[in-house]
Amino acid sequence: MTTTAERRERQRTQLIDAAEKAIAEKGLAGLKARELAQEIGCALGAIYNLVADMDELVLRVGSRTLMRLDAALSAAEGENAPSTANEAADRLVAVALAYCAFARDNLQLWRVLFEHRMAEGAVVPDWAVSEQMTMFRHILEPLSILVPDRSEPERMLMSRTLFSAVHGVVAIGLEEKLIAVPRRDLDRQIEGLVRLVCRGLAVPG
Amino acid sequence: MTTTAERRERQRTQLIDAAEKAIAEKGLAGLKARELAQEIGCALGAIYNLVADMDELVLRVGSRTLMRLDAALSAAEGENAPSTANEAADRLVAVALAYCAFARDNLQLWRVLFEHRMAEGAVVPDWAVSEQMTMFRHILEPLSILVPDRSEPERMLMSRTLFSAVHGVVAIGLEEKLIAVPRRDLDRQIEGLVRLVCRGLAVPG
Repeated sequence: MTTTAERRERQRTQLIDAAEKAIAEKGLAGLKARELAQEIGCALGAIYNLVADMDELVLRVGSRTLMRLDAALSAAEGENAPSTANEAADRLVAVALAYCAFARDNLQLWRVLFEHRMAEGAVVPDWAVSEQMTMFRHILEPLSILVPDRSEPERMLMSRTLFSAVHGVVAIGLEEKLIAVPRRDLDRQIEGLVRLVCRGLAVPG
Repeated sequence: MTTTAERRERQRTQLIDAAEKAIAEKGLAGLKARELAQEIGCALGAIYNLVADMDELVLRVGSRTLMRLDAALSAAEGENAPSTANEAADRLVAVALAYCAFARDNLQLWRVLFEHRMAEGAVVPDWAVSEQMTMFRHILEPLSILVPDRSEPERMLMSRTLFSAVHGVVAIGLEEKLIAVPRRDLDRQIEGLVRLVCRGLAVPG
C-alpha cells in the first residue's frame, strides 16, 4: 500500500531526476518547469508541491553533483591521511586533478554549481550551505599538515584561495578560451601550480 | 564638408559607445540591437553597415575594455622594469591587484570579456586575438626574471596558468559566492597567492 507521503517522495525523486537530465544535456537554460511537469506526468502547478521553487530544484540537483564530486575526491585521496609535507602536497595535487577530471566529465552539471544565482532576495538554505562548506575538508586536511602553525580561520581562507585558483585554471581551460591553458597541458599546469604553492608554503615567509 | 566615410565612422563610434553603455549597465543580456539602433537614430538593419554582426560589436566593446585594463596594469607597474626576483614578485603582485581593482570597478564590462561566446561556427578575428594575447606581456616580463632558464613556450604556459589562477580568485570573490574568498580579504589573499607562487618558483624544483 502506498501512502500519500511515499507517492510524493517518489514523484519528487522523479522531478529531480528529470531536472538533472535536462541540465546535463542543455545546461541551466535547458531547465523548463513545463517540460519537467510533462516528463513526470503532473500538472505544472503540482511541481511546487514537490519543491518550493525552481531555486530549490536547482540546489537539489547541485546537491547530487556535490555528493558525486565528494566521492570522486575521496576516491582520489585513497585511504591514508597525509602525515608529511610531501604527502600533503601529493594529496592536494590528487584532489586538484580529480576536481579537473570531474568538471570535464560533468561539464554542464558542474557549471551550474557556479552559474546558478538565487532569485532576487532569496538566500541559499542552510542545508545547501553546509553541503558546500563540507567540501573544503579535502583541502583543509592536507593544509593542516603543510601549515600547522596557522590559525583555523587563516587556513579556511587559504583553502578558499587555493580552491578558487585551481577552479580558475580548470574553468578557463575547459571553456577553451584563446587565453586558456590548452586542454592537453591542463593537468600538468594544475599539478605545477599546486606544487608551486606547496613549495612556497614550505619556505618561511 | 563631411564625407560618407567620415559620417559612417562617426556613427560607428556612436554605436560602440551605446553598446558599451548598455553592457556596463545591464551586462551582455542588456545588449539589444533594436535599442541601440533607436539610441543612435538609425534603422535596425543599418547597424550591419557599421559592424558585421553583434559578435563584432561585443568584441569592439571588449577591445576598449582591454585597452583600459592595459592602461591600468601599466600604471600599476610604474616605470622601471624589474631586475631582481624580489622586484619581479612585487611587479606580479601589483599587476594582480590592479587586475582585481579593475574587475571590481568595471564588473559588467569585465565579465563580458569571459562570458561572450562567438556565434556557432564563427571564429574570433585576428585583431581581437592579438589584442588579448598582448596582455600577457604584463606577466611574461616579470616571469622572465623569475625563471630565466625556462623556454618561452613554457613561460607562456605558466603565464596562462598564473593568470587563470588569479582570475579564479577574483571572479569567485566578486560574485560573492558562499565559497568565495570574502571581499574584505580578497586583496590580501591575491597577494598571498602570487607571493607563494613566486616563492615556489625561487626554490629549485
